[in-house]
Amino acid sequence: MEYDILVQQIIEFLGTFAFAISGIRHAASKRFDWFGGYVCGIAVAIGGGTIRDVMLGTTPFWMTNPIYMECTAMALLFVIVFARHLKRLSNAWFAFDTLGLALFNIAGIQKSIVFGQPFWVAIIMGCITGAAGGVIRDVLLNNEPVIFRKEIYAIAAVAGGLAYWGLVVLNVPIEVTVFVSFATTCLIRFMAVKYHLSLPKLKNE
Amino acid sequence: MEYDILVQQIIEFLGTFAFAISGIRHAASKRFDWFGGYVCGIAVAIGGGTIRDVMLGTTPFWMTNPIYMECTAMALLFVIVFARHLKRLSNAWFAFDTLGLALFNIAGIQKSIVFGQPFWVAIIMGCITGAAGGVIRDVLLNNEPVIFRKEIYAIAAVAGGLAYWGLVVLNVPIEVTVFVSFATTCLIRFMAVKYHLSLPKLKNE
Amino acid sequence: MEYDILVQQIIEFLGTFAFAISGIRHAASKRFDWFGGYVCGIAVAIGGGTIRDVMLGTTPFWMTNPIYMECTAMALLFVIVFARHLKRLSNAWFAFDTLGLALFNIAGIQKSIVFGQPFWVAIIMGCITGAAGGVIRDVLLNNEPVIFRKEIYAIAAVAGGLAYWGLVVLNVPIEVTVFVSFATTCLIRFMAVKYHLSLPKLKNE
Repeated sequence: MEYDILVQQIIEFLGTFAFAISGIRHAASKRFDWFGGYVCGIAVAIGGGTIRDVMLGTTPFWMTNPIYMECTAMALLFVIVFARHLKRLSNAWFAFDTLGLALFNIAGIQKSIVFGQPFWVAIIMGCITGAAGGVIRDVLLNNEPVIFRKEIYAIAAVAGGLAYWGLVVLNVPIEVTVFVSFATTCLIRFMAVKYHLSLPKLKNE
Repeated sequence: MEYDILVQQIIEFLGTFAFAISGIRHAASKRFDWFGGYVCGIAVAIGGGTIRDVMLGTTPFWMTNPIYMECTAMALLFVIVFARHLKRLSNAWFAFDTLGLALFNIAGIQKSIVFGQPFWVAIIMGCITGAAGGVIRDVLLNNEPVIFRKEIYAIAAVAGGLAYWGLVVLNVPIEVTVFVSFATTCLIRFMAVKYHLSLPKLKNE
Repeated sequence: MEYDILVQQIIEFLGTFAFAISGIRHAASKRFDWFGGYVCGIAVAIGGGTIRDVMLGTTPFWMTNPIYMECTAMALLFVIVFARHLKRLSNAWFAFDTLGLALFNIAGIQKSIVFGQPFWVAIIMGCITGAAGGVIRDVLLNNEPVIFRKEIYAIAAVAGGLAYWGLVVLNVPIEVTVFVSFATTCLIRFMAVKYHLSLPKLKNE
């Protein structure tokens, strides 16, 4: 069990780091300064979870532990120092970002259940936890939110949430449930990017 | 009385539907995908009420009943299936949207009063309930908020709120108060669009 | 002591007024109408403190006293009537805005401490109280947030917050602590604008 918690903490750290890197790189593409980069990194890393916690009526998670601010500061330092090498690592960012999405999704679902929410709310909260930070980033950067148009992203979180729900209803052990939900989100996201899968576009009238 | 509640529920459903349609059609004009359309629809339908509830310190209303998510899903389906015929219905959307504005405004006022807020706060909350969703939609779409420039919209809600306040002070029965407030908002909004009434623009220096 | 409170209230009023003016002038540059100007003024004047209060789990401060809405209404009237003379007063706006930033920063720190938050959270909350309103304004105006690129602004608040923290740790009397924190923020901001000091920009890959 302690090993499980260690694995989860490592994934959470990598996910937060990858989310922060995503915000900072987008900020760099608009030539924001270091502070702007830090805020955009923070927005991606903690934005979704903060919205979730405010709606659940509890203190935002990042206020209880400075690790998220520190992790984002490390990401900023990393981007500043290794700016030239970031592109070469883009497969790593994509992988970490996907792990982060899948993990944050599950964390959002579980926290909502603990707060007595029904599963349909928990699935929405999981999706918000994983995907809303990127929307805030795009709003701050004055861009159209990328998840509303590009390869499947938020829907991968919803699918992972539905898998979680189904397995809980079937009384499957929690470790299996978490693993299957995690794998579902990761798999759909990987496939979406590999095969350029996206939802149909709405037709303009 | 049961008849009143039925009428109110029908108006609420039509208003939510019209608000969601507004978000989805705007998303379509930017060629967002189905998920992007759904989120924009949700933003208009529940965005204002969610801000109100968070500021009142209570659980957002949509988390207590899945009807709002379902209504938005129906609106999305409707837009996808009847894309070609939407424009012809624009008078209907406008009418439903106005009913929604007037009703959401009153719902926001009443909820704020129940939570012990003074009337000046309740009027602001009514206006936020009715009009803030459209602002969130425009922010997500990377547009300038339309209610800051076009025909009178939010001010119609404020006028309905002031009417509500005045009649409560005068001890008018609640049914009359609600009706007059509702009619005030609808009338001002209809007149504003019919005669292209808008507030004066600020002068650029 | 009563004299202190009077000074603080005057600074708070001037700061709120200057923040509101900033929002309304930006709205004017986009030719928003009076309502749009009022909302943008409100956003700058109360946006940061509202985010702080929601995250602290308490009722937003502006709901407990109508003075902030009234002050913004006065700012709107002022901009409408004296539109031609506003530019000549730009040194005054800059001075009031800086006083507002320094004071709102301290107010945010102190309120967070009262709510039992550790100092690192309080410093972030102070920065949000002073600087987030301007970001909301820029998002509503469909602009890139100016504080992510221009002369040092939010960092001046953080520096004032660190000074506050250090002096509290050293058991310095509260009046001195407040004064030094206030002066630190103002001084850094004045110097930043006078000598065009800004943080390094992130490099685009």
